[in-house]
Amino acid sequence: MKRLIYLLATGLLVVLPSLAIAEEAPVSEMSYILNTFSFLVMGILVMWMAAGFGMLESGLVRSKNVATICLKNIALFGIAGVLFYLIGYNLMYNGVDGGYIGSLGLWGADDAAAAAGDFSAGYSAASDWFFQMVFCGAACSVVSGCVAERIKLWPFLAFCVVLTGIIYPVQGSWGWGGGWLSELGFVDFAGSTIVHSVGGWAALTGAIILGARKGKYGKKGQINPIPGSNIPLATLGTFILWMGWYGFNGGSVLALGDAASAIAMGNVIVNTNMSACGGMIAAMIMVQILYKKVDVTMALNGALAGLVSITAGPDTPSLGAAVLIGAVGGVLVVLAVPFFDKLKIDDVVGALSVHLVCGIWGTLAVPFTNSEASFVTQLIGVAATGAFVIVASSIVWLVLKFTVGIRVGEEEEFRGMDVTEIGMEAYPDFQKISSGASSAH
Amino acid sequence: MKRLIYLLATGLLVVLPSLAIAEEAPVSEMSYILNTFSFLVMGILVMWMAAGFGMLESGLVRSKNVATICLKNIALFGIAGVLFYLIGYNLMYNGVDGGYIGSLGLWGADDAAAAAGDFSAGYSAASDWFFQMVFCGAACSVVSGCVAERIKLWPFLAFCVVLTGIIYPVQGSWGWGGGWLSELGFVDFAGSTIVHSVGGWAALTGAIILGARKGKYGKKGQINPIPGSNIPLATLGTFILWMGWYGFNGGSVLALGDAASAIAMGNVIVNTNMSACGGMIAAMIMVQILYKKVDVTMALNGALAGLVSITAGPDTPSLGAAVLIGAVGGVLVVLAVPFFDKLKIDDVVGALSVHLVCGIWGTLAVPFTNSEASFVTQLIGVAATGAFVIVASSIVWLVLKFTVGIRVGEEEEFRGMDVTEIGMEAYPDFQKISSGASSAH
Amino acid sequence: MKRLIYLLATGLLVVLPSLAIAEEAPVSEMSYILNTFSFLVMGILVMWMAAGFGMLESGLVRSKNVATICLKNIALFGIAGVLFYLIGYNLMYNGVDGGYIGSLGLWGADDAAAAAGDFSAGYSAASDWFFQMVFCGAACSVVSGCVAERIKLWPFLAFCVVLTGIIYPVQGSWGWGGGWLSELGFVDFAGSTIVHSVGGWAALTGAIILGARKGKYGKKGQINPIPGSNIPLATLGTFILWMGWYGFNGGSVLALGDAASAIAMGNVIVNTNMSACGGMIAAMIMVQILYKKVDVTMALNGALAGLVSITAGPDTPSLGAAVLIGAVGGVLVVLAVPFFDKLKIDDVVGALSVHLVCGIWGTLAVPFTNSEASFVTQLIGVAATGAFVIVASSIVWLVLKFTVGIRVGEEEEFRGMDVTEIGMEAYPDFQKISSGASSAH
Repeated sequence: MKRLIYLLATGLLVVLPSLAIAEEAPVSEMSYILNTFSFLVMGILVMWMAAGFGMLESGLVRSKNVATICLKNIALFGIAGVLFYLIGYNLMYNGVDGGYIGSLGLWGADDAAAAAGDFSAGYSAASDWFFQMVFCGAACSVVSGCVAERIKLWPFLAFCVVLTGIIYPVQGSWGWGGGWLSELGFVDFAGSTIVHSVGGWAALTGAIILGARKGKYGKKGQINPIPGSNIPLATLGTFILWMGWYGFNGGSVLALGDAASAIAMGNVIVNTNMSACGGMIAAMIMVQILYKKVDVTMALNGALAGLVSITAGPDTPSLGAAVLIGAVGGVLVVLAVPFFDKLKIDDVVGALSVHLVCGIWGTLAVPFTNSEASFVTQLIGVAATGAFVIVASSIVWLVLKFTVGIRVGEEEEFRGMDVTEIGMEAYPDFQKISSGASSAH
Repeated sequence: MKRLIYLLATGLLVVLPSLAIAEEAPVSEMSYILNTFSFLVMGILVMWMAAGFGMLESGLVRSKNVATICLKNIALFGIAGVLFYLIGYNLMYNGVDGGYIGSLGLWGADDAAAAAGDFSAGYSAASDWFFQMVFCGAACSVVSGCVAERIKLWPFLAFCVVLTGIIYPVQGSWGWGGGWLSELGFVDFAGSTIVHSVGGWAALTGAIILGARKGKYGKKGQINPIPGSNIPLATLGTFILWMGWYGFNGGSVLALGDAASAIAMGNVIVNTNMSACGGMIAAMIMVQILYKKVDVTMALNGALAGLVSITAGPDTPSLGAAVLIGAVGGVLVVLAVPFFDKLKIDDVVGALSVHLVCGIWGTLAVPFTNSEASFVTQLIGVAATGAFVIVASSIVWLVLKFTVGIRVGEEEEFRGMDVTEIGMEAYPDFQKISSGASSAH
Repeated sequence: MKRLIYLLATGLLVVLPSLAIAEEAPVSEMSYILNTFSFLVMGILVMWMAAGFGMLESGLVRSKNVATICLKNIALFGIAGVLFYLIGYNLMYNGVDGGYIGSLGLWGADDAAAAAGDFSAGYSAASDWFFQMVFCGAACSVVSGCVAERIKLWPFLAFCVVLTGIIYPVQGSWGWGGGWLSELGFVDFAGSTIVHSVGGWAALTGAIILGARKGKYGKKGQINPIPGSNIPLATLGTFILWMGWYGFNGGSVLALGDAASAIAMGNVIVNTNMSACGGMIAAMIMVQILYKKVDVTMALNGALAGLVSITAGPDTPSLGAAVLIGAVGGVLVVLAVPFFDKLKIDDVVGALSVHLVCGIWGTLAVPFTNSEASFVTQLIGVAATGAFVIVASSIVWLVLKFTVGIRVGEEEEFRGMDVTEIGMEAYPDFQKISSGASSAH
């Protein structure tokens, strides 16, 4: 199998001798501009993913919790911005030097050298900060959907403060900030582990500590499906995420100022697309075979599974290999959703199956097409990140649980958080089907 | 009239002597980067149109078929990616040489020359593939709305496989792949014929072979309107399409690495916008006069009509001429919708009126502002494309019809495809108005 | 306070000596291309804000008026395009020379010099026109939400014709077209005053002359909340606006062809983001303190308040100062909403609180971080713009009122404008909660 993928990779996509070009000359002003502009345009696409998560989750929760999930999604993006400015960026990128953490502090742009005509920094400070900040926001967005429909608003946002200010940046410094994982040779191109699995682990601990929604798991072991309230919104969210992912992976080339980078960006974007195709089609075929019907939310999650799976290494596979990597992700997501349900871990939108399971798979798949990555190092990266995030997140969730509490009361959960937590219905003009009609409602 | 448009064209917009600049020098690395980046950014905008079609169609079908149309729209985009990789791109662009078809085969990026410092290819292979693939997806998106609410899921997707893998690429090779139509001098800048009419012809044959939805046409000849279920989603879809069209037409300059191309891209984007304005305003005035009320879906279709109409030649008109070209499209769409209804061709979202009728109009309008185009050649291109797509599509639809069947049963159609085909409602929390209340429901 | 912000500004963000670089050399072809491409890409993001306004307003009106507000939002964008072509651009930019108005006339692109190899124009004519046109559309979008749910369709569109064709361009010529305000030293980087307050003043006069919606204000002085019908759409609209604002402010650097501009664009985009964060978080904390619940629409308006507040000067603050400027905007919006209600000025979506109040605040805040701006000049700009727009808008509204009428009848308002004005419901499949159930409905 590995050999098959390898043949596909080398046969179908000529890998560039990129170093040969990249080392040629000092950075010109034009290269500096293009690198900067790439960060900004691609970063804007990644910011757009925050809306994608918001719409996906709005579509997959029940109508009585929609306004609350909207609020959480936009609020966490604002929190990510502020915390990444206050401490996150510095913790992640400032003087890590092979270690485990950067130095604490406010971040401010410094482009004095470039202003004096020395473009060796490669890009403007703010453009880089922006691109990294939106990744921090994306990791946090993964959490909100998983723990939806029963977590209190402010405690959730408090968790987001710690996740975006400390947990994400600290582990991020290991692989992307010049820390110990990068020195070990860990490869995570755009964050299958560093972004998606981190959100996944944080969500997993949250879901376990919170417990399942009332009525989700029956006393006799049955699993009650709780359908989402708005499928076109969920579809829109998936389209937005797919679109934003071109920026997520494409921008992670981290340059545009030389031909090799432009070529790499094109390859990355195409592979990102192919993996999404593979994941979606594989998931559709799987559910058709298993359940005789194509659950549309599984198709959506299949596409997202493909996107997460390719994210650790979208630069080296051929198109065919990218389809296969995504297809495995799509199969995994179809198997993982009932698996988590069997464990009674209630993941409202399938975030664990998509971001955690496929984040791990994608990271481990890198060596299939990238000879510079080793399976052992990839496994170390996955495990170390998982261990750290599980411990750190659990501490935060438990501190919150035993101080302010993290779960709404039964009455609040039954009536819906929109009315009880934020005093506003998402769809007040429409007659809802009585929420007492089924045990799941 | 032609003279009026000509005067507007030459008086208001100075056409560039673009060849003078474009031939000056070999492609520099910076030009190569900009050409590549333009394909990627504009291609991402075109991909976004898949979401636009999805939202437009989700808004215009009844609530009982919304989840299904969502699934079809995202699935077809995934299929387009895979099929264009497996055979489509090669059929369309590989060794056509004045002929009728390219050579079959997997596509893989080859940028060896550029990596060695020879930038004469002009742009990275993957960036070009990506830009062409999203066009293939767009052609397929046209079909889904027209045949909605009664076509089975898998047979529809099977049709998409053939359309994106064979039908679209084969005819595309004629005009864009260096085939016989391009040698004849056929001008279709961004695909009024090659993309939109192709989707339109495929949809037309599908709609005829499928037959109309139950209740749409009464026994005494009356036409029952079947209103869409979500107007803001349809509006969002139109806005997305309008936005994506800047990339569709602007990116079709196929370069950004020289000033002439950048100027052309600006002119194209502005004309694209003006034609949408003209189409929308004309359609609004028309329906106000004819029906005394401004049907919002007609305004939306008017904007789309303007966009389709300008697509064959957005580079040569003045702004005023672009408004007129779009306005004629807006008038045509208002007339075409009842025309197709009179023929009992049931087009759920108006796709035929928008993409087929205005695709033809836009192609025939090119000679008004482009002296290099001739009316006869344009007509040949329209007719040849139409003939081929009608025949090829009909064969596929009929084979599907007489093997697996393409139409859901009466009971399924009555209850809605969301429940019967994919086992999931789009809006399960909301009380629907009984679908038995009117013959159309 | 001013000193605190000043310290933050100088301490955290090194301001570039941008002139030193910018004056170096004549504009190269590459600079010309990048300037042009920046206008196009950023302009497309600003166009996207039209969809953002549309979704925000669709979410915040009642379901019986949703189709109408959709139609208004897309129609006004089309009108802005045509009017800015027919007269607006020329009135705003053609030969203003320190005066009060440009010369009337059709606009057409003229790039003859660039085509001949002289790139001193800096960018293509069409790209600049496009970028300015979408700003004109944005000013108009501000109005539609404020006067929603009771204004007739065609009279509203007639107002849009005058606003986009005359009122916006005339006042725009003062600050941006080289008119008297720019000579005075008025600083409005991307339009807190010139775009947002203009929309706000036009909306204010409209709301006063129209009067409040039936049932909004009780006879005994009570204020009846009228909740919006679709919170996820409103959230989506806010995300779209947030995203589009990166283009609104980032593109207003008006160049990308030199490193200083690229650096400035990065700083502007980051500050725009931080101000939105500050506004949203401040508004959330304020409403939690005041009302013990976080009204999600107030969080959304807080983010928008931050965006409007930074728009007059996103280039000079540090990130910390940008957060503070936005936070003040967030507080203002929470105070302004009940203030306008106390005055019985019925602003359906909070447009006055966001765009007018924060537009003024943002303009007056510029001198805190920009030593080239003076408080007095800023005040003159705000006041002169306000006076002109109030007078001009009032005349137009009153002429419309006493000729064709601007307000729908009581019966129409009660039943909803979707049925009575455009003959189409937004959500026909869903059972609505009886609109006679409360006086506000």
